[in-house]
Amino acid sequence: MNDKLIQIIFPDGQKRTFPKGITLEEIAGAISTSLKKKAVAGSVNGKLYDLRRAVCEDAEVTILTLDSEEGLKILRHTTAHVLAQAIKRIYGEVNFGVGPVIENGFYYDMDLSESLSIEDLEKIEGHMQDIINENLDIGRIEVSRKEAYEMFQNDPLKLELLGDIPGGEKVTIYRQGEFTDLCRGPHLPSTGFIKAFKLTNVSGAYWRGDSKNKMLQRVYGVAFAKKEDLDRYLHFLAEAAKRDHRKLGKALELFMFSEEAPGMPFYLPKGQMIKGELEAFLRELQRKNGYEEVRTPFMMNQRLWEQSGHWDHYKENMYFTEVDQTSFALKPMNCPGHMLIFKNKLRSYRDLPIRLAEFGQVHRHEFSGALNGMFRVRTFCQDDAHIFVAPGQIEEEIKEIIKLIDKVYSTFGFEYSVELSTRPDDSMGDDSLWEKAEGALENVLKELKYPYSVNEGDGAFYGPKIDFHIKDALNRSHQCATVQLDFQMPDKFDLNYVDEKGGKARPVVIHRAIYGSLDRFFGILIEHFGGAFPVWLAPVQAKVIPVSKAHLDYASRVEKLLKEAGIRVDIDDRDEKLGYKIRESQMNKIPYILVVGDKEENDQAVNVRQYSGEGSEAVSLNDFCSRIKLEVKDRLLK
Amino acid sequence: MNDKLIQIIFPDGQKRTFPKGITLEEIAGAISTSLKKKAVAGSVNGKLYDLRRAVCEDAEVTILTLDSEEGLKILRHTTAHVLAQAIKRIYGEVNFGVGPVIENGFYYDMDLSESLSIEDLEKIEGHMQDIINENLDIGRIEVSRKEAYEMFQNDPLKLELLGDIPGGEKVTIYRQGEFTDLCRGPHLPSTGFIKAFKLTNVSGAYWRGDSKNKMLQRVYGVAFAKKEDLDRYLHFLAEAAKRDHRKLGKALELFMFSEEAPGMPFYLPKGQMIKGELEAFLRELQRKNGYEEVRTPFMMNQRLWEQSGHWDHYKENMYFTEVDQTSFALKPMNCPGHMLIFKNKLRSYRDLPIRLAEFGQVHRHEFSGALNGMFRVRTFCQDDAHIFVAPGQIEEEIKEIIKLIDKVYSTFGFEYSVELSTRPDDSMGDDSLWEKAEGALENVLKELKYPYSVNEGDGAFYGPKIDFHIKDALNRSHQCATVQLDFQMPDKFDLNYVDEKGGKARPVVIHRAIYGSLDRFFGILIEHFGGAFPVWLAPVQAKVIPVSKAHLDYASRVEKLLKEAGIRVDIDDRDEKLGYKIRESQMNKIPYILVVGDKEENDQAVNVRQYSGEGSEAVSLNDFCSRIKLEVKDRLLK
Repeated sequence: MNDKLIQIIFPDGQKRTFPKGITLEEIAGAISTSLKKKAVAGSVNGKLYDLRRAVCEDAEVTILTLDSEEGLKILRHTTAHVLAQAIKRIYGEVNFGVGPVIENGFYYDMDLSESLSIEDLEKIEGHMQDIINENLDIGRIEVSRKEAYEMFQNDPLKLELLGDIPGGEKVTIYRQGEFTDLCRGPHLPSTGFIKAFKLTNVSGAYWRGDSKNKMLQRVYGVAFAKKEDLDRYLHFLAEAAKRDHRKLGKALELFMFSEEAPGMPFYLPKGQMIKGELEAFLRELQRKNGYEEVRTPFMMNQRLWEQSGHWDHYKENMYFTEVDQTSFALKPMNCPGHMLIFKNKLRSYRDLPIRLAEFGQVHRHEFSGALNGMFRVRTFCQDDAHIFVAPGQIEEEIKEIIKLIDKVYSTFGFEYSVELSTRPDDSMGDDSLWEKAEGALENVLKELKYPYSVNEGDGAFYGPKIDFHIKDALNRSHQCATVQLDFQMPDKFDLNYVDEKGGKARPVVIHRAIYGSLDRFFGILIEHFGGAFPVWLAPVQAKVIPVSKAHLDYASRVEKLLKEAGIRVDIDDRDEKLGYKIRESQMNKIPYILVVGDKEENDQAVNVRQYSGEGSEAVSLNDFCSRIKLEVKDRLLK
Repeated sequence: MNDKLIQIIFPDGQKRTFPKGITLEEIAGAISTSLKKKAVAGSVNGKLYDLRRAVCEDAEVTILTLDSEEGLKILRHTTAHVLAQAIKRIYGEVNFGVGPVIENGFYYDMDLSESLSIEDLEKIEGHMQDIINENLDIGRIEVSRKEAYEMFQNDPLKLELLGDIPGGEKVTIYRQGEFTDLCRGPHLPSTGFIKAFKLTNVSGAYWRGDSKNKMLQRVYGVAFAKKEDLDRYLHFLAEAAKRDHRKLGKALELFMFSEEAPGMPFYLPKGQMIKGELEAFLRELQRKNGYEEVRTPFMMNQRLWEQSGHWDHYKENMYFTEVDQTSFALKPMNCPGHMLIFKNKLRSYRDLPIRLAEFGQVHRHEFSGALNGMFRVRTFCQDDAHIFVAPGQIEEEIKEIIKLIDKVYSTFGFEYSVELSTRPDDSMGDDSLWEKAEGALENVLKELKYPYSVNEGDGAFYGPKIDFHIKDALNRSHQCATVQLDFQMPDKFDLNYVDEKGGKARPVVIHRAIYGSLDRFFGILIEHFGGAFPVWLAPVQAKVIPVSKAHLDYASRVEKLLKEAGIRVDIDDRDEKLGYKIRESQMNKIPYILVVGDKEENDQAVNVRQYSGEGSEAVSLNDFCSRIKLEVKDRLLK
């Protein structure tokens, strides 16, 4: 082969010959003009290349555009450089730390004497836009280590980063206009490729994440291929902020936190009402499905946690106390208690499956920095169940559990996806058992026609599992339910039942949770519904507002009738304007506002405003009562 | 006055003159022959005297018979001596420790080389009966300390007791036949006065209750004035044993305990069902009465417990753990958490009373020896509430609380008595506040026409309280509900509300519990009902038993109908004899057994056997369904 030519293989397998030293941009152009226009970088034999970098060897080549995640990462990285350049233009004296890509955007850490605030971001954005408009070419330069040290001799942060680059690796710098930065790249060909970006936040950050180091300033931003994408994302952010369960939890008086017990929620009356409904709903379903509810102690002695394996695998997350000179642990899980209940009497194959359920309050330590509203707490109520089955009952039982999960999630309007996690490297138990168990789970998923993905090696050490991820109203994914097969716990606790032949047999344990953590699920629900709960969950389901004092009597009759029907109804008898009262009820996201005046009283009716609807309609009192009762009873979403 | 005569004043104020040195027995005889016959001892100027002891001074005299508690105590003390004498006759070599009177009886501690068991008691009773039949006179002898030391020189236990007698006190010994004992007395005139006794138990007991001392043997017995009293008491004991909640809890599978968590109950499915019903009942009433349910964390930091005063007053009973290098306590009470909730927002006089209720799980340390089934545990669920009122609302609110308590107790068929506890010595707060508070409580009790007793000085240090004592089916008294006024906690937590004039005012806190501890109340209920719960509480409310396989279909229809009506119904479809199945259901104290055969199927009926009734009756299915639904809904006792 001519040594002036190189062979390029494309992702679809096509091969073409090009002159050695051709740039990726030229290769893209050789394919199509439109690709050349969209190209931002490429991958050459698996390594990312700048678009205008020469290719000098035979290679598998992929041209990257902003349609790919890799392309977007390069866009975001370049935007970080543009940010740095703008900062330097504005403030002059500044040293930069790291400026990596993060989800949807980037940040850059900087050592700057001026203290930045949110208000400064617009000005910086302006300068960034100038740099983009200048459409500066971005050049990659390979330099020797010595040259690099000289270039950054006055920049202690970059010198430290330079010292971290492995000896064999090339040192590269990137230059755009007057701005130069030590960087692995790749980058966009020029700053003009940036079409849609926004700076979002500024915060403090220790150099290299170490609190012993200097505190730098970190500016966050996001960048997208086009303005529509940015707008969609900013809208999502605004929507998510509006739905933030920490904010809504406070505004709607659902829960509170206190510095006297960080990470441990206080349920205020309205939140406790919702939590109670969540419990009651699942309790009802569980009873119908043959579960038996139990309650086990909140702490048990160390010996038991050693037996269960938690001592070895989970000690760091457990809280301990002392009782009669013996170490006791607050339970992080309910399993050992349920094992003791199983062992409490002689069990027969006729009794299986035995389904022990507990709304069990567990305590698990989390770092204070990791705490996050209801999403990450130090104590939560788990809708836990342990099902003791004979080996032959596994598939049928898993099927029933999945049906139950489906029933629960569909009641909240959640779609969900399913993941099967298989044997991990550090697993216990013999091969045939694992194969049978994994096979059983797969069979069930196939039989129920569930699409599922497989996480190879991601099962628990004691058995494979199926995880359920729900999608909330903002399309965010939350892992909640889990179904785990366990062959180890029955061994560790020497669990037995009398089989058909009168012999001793070992049951299999299925661990199962549907909400997972009731507290976290509650948080998810707040964000999913944006605080506007379906009627059955709403702490106040209807508010009666008399038009004037003259209608108080009738309003009280409406209230009484609804109360007797089991509806959580309030009356707003304050001496305030009607409009004010209606607005306040709406702010509290009360599903039904019932205004009653002369007309309603004469017609034995109520004027109904639905939180989720527009306008109002007159409905006969009896009809409304039937309607709301049905909505509550059937737990309708509407 | 003649110095050979003395003047005797009787309890009714009558005075009579007797020769100096007359015995109490003679004085009794002078009053009436029947009194002389019944007399067993007397009190002379407030000191207890043996019946045949001479009275040598003017005195107020009461003749004691076995109709009085003091008389019975003397009887029981003498029976203890008879026990000791019998032991000595049988075993010869023995030393005795103390032999005091206890409720209904006595015990005697002894250092005996033979190991006694329950089986030995009958033989000992035989010898005691011999001594009684011998009707030995019991003589009191005053001796010098020196004489006493000589008499008991070979008896180290008595020598130690002798050393404890204060210098100024006379040393007395009592002798009956060949048996002599160091004793303060008084005693019966002779052993023949003992008509009804029984030895009940034998156990080990450290000398002087100190585990560093020698272990002695303790024999327990009971004694009564006459056989009927003894029989009644033994019947009560047998009945109490049958109802023992620890035994029934096991037999009916309500709860269990484990050595992995001493004093911390595990609720088995049937027990958890009952606990759930108890909660649901109170929750329903509380909602109707304007309570709001909350849930506060299970542990909070030490700072908070210092602020609340629990650190100073209750530390020894609390369990501690560490979170982020800070000491946290498992909550022994719910008050501080509720104070934080009150403080969480600005409160107005219009919001008061604010009634925060919590089914709060608290942990309180108890010595392992003090643990006793559900009656004394280390963690329990308290039906706690804190009511924040303006000072002027106290009386009205207390009245509402008492009505609520009455509603709860009458639902279980409990009668109850009321005690008002007033300012203790170590109280906090100023006089006028205390007077007002005590006055308020008394006013309410008077207005509601409640008879009550006053426990002077027995209030909490922060305020006066009303305690409620329920009487169970065996007439035993249990303190459960408490209503306490608290002026201190609002100060300690600087609680405020905005008053009518827009100023800052301090609320008063009312602590209130009705069940007290749900776990203990559950234990009381088990014993009160002897495990045969009213329908609404019964874990299984009805059992359907088909006469044969042919009736399984109809039985299932009955089951389904009742289930749909919300009844907890089981079907016994096992291949067992009808009689066997009925007996088993009765052993499990299931309120309704529904036998269905040809006749029932033809008539669309069930053959009803009620646990509490005799025989059975045919009832149409629909009628039965309505009847049991009503019983559950109205929580009838039947």
